[in-house]
Amino acid sequence: MATTNRQVRLRARPDGIPQAHHFEVVDEPLDALADGRFRVRNMYLSVDPAMRGWVSAVANYSKPVGIGEVMRSFAVGEVAESRHPDFAVGDLLVGMFGWQHFADSDGSNVIRRVREHDLPLSAQLGIFGLNGITALLGLTLIGEPKPGETVLVSTAAGSVGATVGQIAKILGCRAVGIAGGPEKVRLCLEEFGYDAALDYKAPGDLSAAVARACPQGVHVYFDNTAGPVSDAVLPHLANRARVVICGTASIASWNPPPLGPRVERHMLTKRARMQGFLYFDHLDRAEEATAQLADWVREGKLRYREDVIDGLDAAPDAIAGLYRGENLGKRLIRVSA
Amino acid sequence: MATTNRQVRLRARPDGIPQAHHFEVVDEPLDALADGRFRVRNMYLSVDPAMRGWVSAVANYSKPVGIGEVMRSFAVGEVAESRHPDFAVGDLLVGMFGWQHFADSDGSNVIRRVREHDLPLSAQLGIFGLNGITALLGLTLIGEPKPGETVLVSTAAGSVGATVGQIAKILGCRAVGIAGGPEKVRLCLEEFGYDAALDYKAPGDLSAAVARACPQGVHVYFDNTAGPVSDAVLPHLANRARVVICGTASIASWNPPPLGPRVERHMLTKRARMQGFLYFDHLDRAEEATAQLADWVREGKLRYREDVIDGLDAAPDAIAGLYRGENLGKRLIRVSA
Repeated sequence: MATTNRQVRLRARPDGIPQAHHFEVVDEPLDALADGRFRVRNMYLSVDPAMRGWVSAVANYSKPVGIGEVMRSFAVGEVAESRHPDFAVGDLLVGMFGWQHFADSDGSNVIRRVREHDLPLSAQLGIFGLNGITALLGLTLIGEPKPGETVLVSTAAGSVGATVGQIAKILGCRAVGIAGGPEKVRLCLEEFGYDAALDYKAPGDLSAAVARACPQGVHVYFDNTAGPVSDAVLPHLANRARVVICGTASIASWNPPPLGPRVERHMLTKRARMQGFLYFDHLDRAEEATAQLADWVREGKLRYREDVIDGLDAAPDAIAGLYRGENLGKRLIRVSA
Repeated sequence: MATTNRQVRLRARPDGIPQAHHFEVVDEPLDALADGRFRVRNMYLSVDPAMRGWVSAVANYSKPVGIGEVMRSFAVGEVAESRHPDFAVGDLLVGMFGWQHFADSDGSNVIRRVREHDLPLSAQLGIFGLNGITALLGLTLIGEPKPGETVLVSTAAGSVGATVGQIAKILGCRAVGIAGGPEKVRLCLEEFGYDAALDYKAPGDLSAAVARACPQGVHVYFDNTAGPVSDAVLPHLANRARVVICGTASIASWNPPPLGPRVERHMLTKRARMQGFLYFDHLDRAEEATAQLADWVREGKLRYREDVIDGLDAAPDAIAGLYRGENLGKRLIRVSA
């Protein structure tokens, strides 16, 4: 039985994107388990762009992680010890277990039990987790794509974006991706089945490229970036377009908000709709969404990539790495205590 | 029987707000009426902020008025002569009859017949026309206000805004207005029943004033201005707020779009929705909306103001005057030929 717990704690509050020096790795003795609680041995920890918001002091959708607290994160793990009637040793769980080897829980931070035993456990944090569910529900509930419409996705090769693009194709839409660099553009076309993919880092006029790739206009813009990519897209919205605001990866700091071209005229003349999507509002649909995603994975209709880092000591720099664009696929940390 | 028709025609295409010199007043002989057509003698012509868009060459929701063409406008008038089976001399009609004394029509530009014979004819172009219907349908269809929520309105004393504020109160909401200058603020509070009204021209921090006036946050923002007023409002959206984009009065030119603080973070963290509203998409609901508005006017629940200018010669400068903020109430031109 393990007697120490390695944790990654928030050491200082970043103004923008959290860097390695904002965290510290600490070894802590494990206490005896209290009655009514169980202990999860984490197996994979998630690294998500949204974590930038979780440590931000700027108004947000959740209470910021406190200084000195374990970094909040999705994780998948196995119950190693239990004094809780509903959780038995060996149960596989997805939950907000944090960047640490062991998480003690009363069950309130459990999101779901792993049911897809035929599929890799790591997928619970990506295609069956935040990323896949965000893609499926954000696209369908807010984007409301109809067959034949054009769905444009920013960070098109990312773990949310690539799933959006593939689901758009499954639903009978034209899928157009915007990604950074020729390798990601190639992935979009060859692996994720986009009809067209644009490199926002390439020289040339991105706005004109969007117009060429979307001759009927953009019916659904699934936006993971904001910033200059959106500036190039919004003038090409179709009438009654839907813009899903899912992330703002291209904006280094929102304090204060950077300037960009005002959007109201597009929204008005196109009678377009822009709406924010947040996974946590839709936890009640996680089972249903995961079942759909798992079926598509089994049928070979939905592919995903992972970028697995080994060991908790790599965690502190892992979020900054996402924003440096160094990963191809869902970033995970594999841990074993 | 009149033999000449006075018309206001578009002489040159403005880049931003149309000024007097972009129009010319012309007298034209009246031809004999063709079979299947009828001739309307206009009684009131409308002056609307939206006309700026109708003469703009920038992508818009309608074909721009051509150079040399009669200025497009709402009007209310009486059938003076008819060779059309469905329209008889004396019928009172609302339609897109243009800035002119007489309009020949085949019926396709008629919006509705006047049914509110107990109420002033001029009201057909304001509270029962574009302004009132936009207020009612924009607020209810997109804003979806619920009793107890806070509805914030920009150009709160204007002919759309004042109607939105009063309907918000009728629907059981807290109504907060933003207007320019002490006279308009007084009107908001004393005549239109707002719970609070803020003067965006007054010294001080408008954003802090919005926060004080909306302690629960802004659930519905009915936006007629865009620009700095919106910059002060959007940080105070409540969770799941709805932003109705109805007009962009504070922006002198959209070519190119001016810069402002990017909005995506507000939309995401508040899971807010922003959507453009355009009256012309909802013409099928005009009868139903007008009936509701007329009931409220008869019951004394809904007040409106008019700013009536006399004579077609005043038309060319009338749109610019709106943007100079010189009117208190719906601007109309009374004509008689």
